[in-house]
Amino acid sequence: MGARMKARVEVTLKAGVLDPQGEAIRHALGSLGFDGVEDVRVGKVIELELEMQDRNKARAELERMCEKLLANTVIEDYRVEFL
Amino acid sequence: MGARMKARVEVTLKAGVLDPQGEAIRHALGSLGFDGVEDVRVGKVIELELEMQDRNKARAELERMCEKLLANTVIEDYRVEFL
Repeated sequence: MGARMKARVEVTLKAGVLDPQGEAIRHALGSLGFDGVEDVRVGKVIELELEMQDRNKARAELERMCEKLLANTVIEDYRVEFL
Repeated sequence: MGARMKARVEVTLKAGVLDPQGEAIRHALGSLGFDGVEDVRVGKVIELELEMQDRNKARAELERMCEKLLANTVIEDYRVEFL
């Protein structure tokens, strides 16, 4: 039987990739009267509860999950951490 | 003139709020052969570049941005940090 662990994957757009959602937020903040917002970028954070033997194996599995499903590695970076 | 600072806002669903996107990811991971994924929750991370006088004022502004636009405080929590 494995141990229960909690992991966090952050998926963000690579530098240089246009972020229309972030741009829309920046614009909306300006319309609402918030001054001084120069740039906005939006990403995803995915929290997973895992039942696995050990942390090294879990990290390898999480990286495979990112490559296969969680991130689009053409335009996105991902970062795995344990909580 | 203010200083340039970088902030990070994390917006996550409150505990108990159903997360269909997370559930879809959990299901898809199972279909792809990833075992041991017990729960998945998805949130947003918003990175902002600000031109503001000081950090305390910036934090107050960011909290107002969350209340007004970035988070739906009925179902979501938010957390502000500086990078």
